[in-house]
Amino acid sequence: MLQLYFFPMACSLSSRIALMEAGIEAQYHLAHIWTKQVVDDGSDFRDLSPKGAVPVLVLENGERLTESAAVLQYIADLKPETGLAPRPGDFDRYRLQEWLSFIGAEIHKAFLFPAFWYKDDGSLAKPRARIAQTLSVPSAHLAEREFLVSNSFTVADAHLTWALLLLRPAGIDIAQWPPLSAYLARMQARPAVRGAIATEMALRKAVAA
Amino acid sequence: MLQLYFFPMACSLSSRIALMEAGIEAQYHLAHIWTKQVVDDGSDFRDLSPKGAVPVLVLENGERLTESAAVLQYIADLKPETGLAPRPGDFDRYRLQEWLSFIGAEIHKAFLFPAFWYKDDGSLAKPRARIAQTLSVPSAHLAEREFLVSNSFTVADAHLTWALLLLRPAGIDIAQWPPLSAYLARMQARPAVRGAIATEMALRKAVAA
Ligand SMILES: N[C@@H](CCC(=O)N[C@@H](CS)C(=O)NCC(=O)O)C(=O)O
Ligand SMILES: N[C@@H](CCC(=O)N[C@@H](CS)C(=O)NCC(=O)O)C(=O)O
Repeated sequence: MLQLYFFPMACSLSSRIALMEAGIEAQYHLAHIWTKQVVDDGSDFRDLSPKGAVPVLVLENGERLTESAAVLQYIADLKPETGLAPRPGDFDRYRLQEWLSFIGAEIHKAFLFPAFWYKDDGSLAKPRARIAQTLSVPSAHLAEREFLVSNSFTVADAHLTWALLLLRPAGIDIAQWPPLSAYLARMQARPAVRGAIATEMALRKAVAA
Repeated sequence: MLQLYFFPMACSLSSRIALMEAGIEAQYHLAHIWTKQVVDDGSDFRDLSPKGAVPVLVLENGERLTESAAVLQYIADLKPETGLAPRPGDFDRYRLQEWLSFIGAEIHKAFLFPAFWYKDDGSLAKPRARIAQTLSVPSAHLAEREFLVSNSFTVADAHLTWALLLLRPAGIDIAQWPPLSAYLARMQARPAVRGAIATEMALRKAVAA
């Protein structure tokens, strides 16, 4: 069985959404990203992956895959019939990769990561000054479309859903971009998305307590 | 013919390297990333791509593809026989995507981008404090391997070569990681890599002057 190392409401949420949308059973292990402890057995998370970051997907053969863009495409390709990723050879596959890169680099690493890990105003002034321009890109795109790629839900939507959910605790009210708030509401109406978020919100409260 | 919008020595360098390694002819347009002017014709670069960032690859059919991870995989797949990307279905394709994400998010957006665009010490203290841990990941990997993925040059190597070249002007001496400096020297010994860098270094001097 696949095993996903996650931290509740961290970027690994999109991998959980992908697994649930694909109907793939997996074992979930909570890895504490501040203390670097795997909660199951108290082991050091960095022994599993020197990056010490979630998501880590452990395959049946023991290989460990990291980085959301890679993990999400791997999960999607296990069930091509679900359309979670356009098939290789279809030009939309590059559109999927384009959005995964944009979300992972421009929204996550350029803004959400500093917001949650650096916290002080000195570190955050410039990332904050850029985020509106960044968010205008998916907002303009989604003003005319239901999903990021093709005409159906893909793992890029799973990833953007996570990023949009985290913008609020990072101090950004996405109501400024009506296409983004409407999109987030549509995505949260999906049973797999709603289920994944409910599970992780409950775990997050337990971790914080 | 493919058209690549680039700025000399910016991250679009890896797309030029990929095109040259693949032996694909292309038209190159210099887009000034500070002034947002396309140098050819004085047009506004944001009319071509609202992101206003390089690389932008314009395909024969007029479609515009952005984000290095997507552009690099697109170029590689035009010439699968070159091995610039493992073929879809090969597990190493996910390893390629993992490295492209790591370079684009953790080295580029978490460190190089702030170093060149934010500049002030307040913005840079925390990114600087993390970069050694980040670079230890490819360093450990390359201590035992000639290339990032498989046993041959891929577009992930093109992208890491660019990132390593930019670390020095960003204030990081990669001599601290002997596997990384040995790797960079190996990559720069490749004619296509050397040629791409020489072309862009000359253009960079002209732009700066
Ligand atoms: N580029 C990675 C980023 C992974 C990442 O930043 N994960 C965060 C949680 S959202 C983490 O575990 N951080 C712990 C750390 O960096 O020490 C991806 O796209 O998966
Ligand atoms: N996530 C993008 C990043 C693109 C990017 O940051 N390009 C820089 C040059 S290295 C740029 O053109 N910046 C202009 C701007 O952001 O205004 C990618 O991987 O291609």
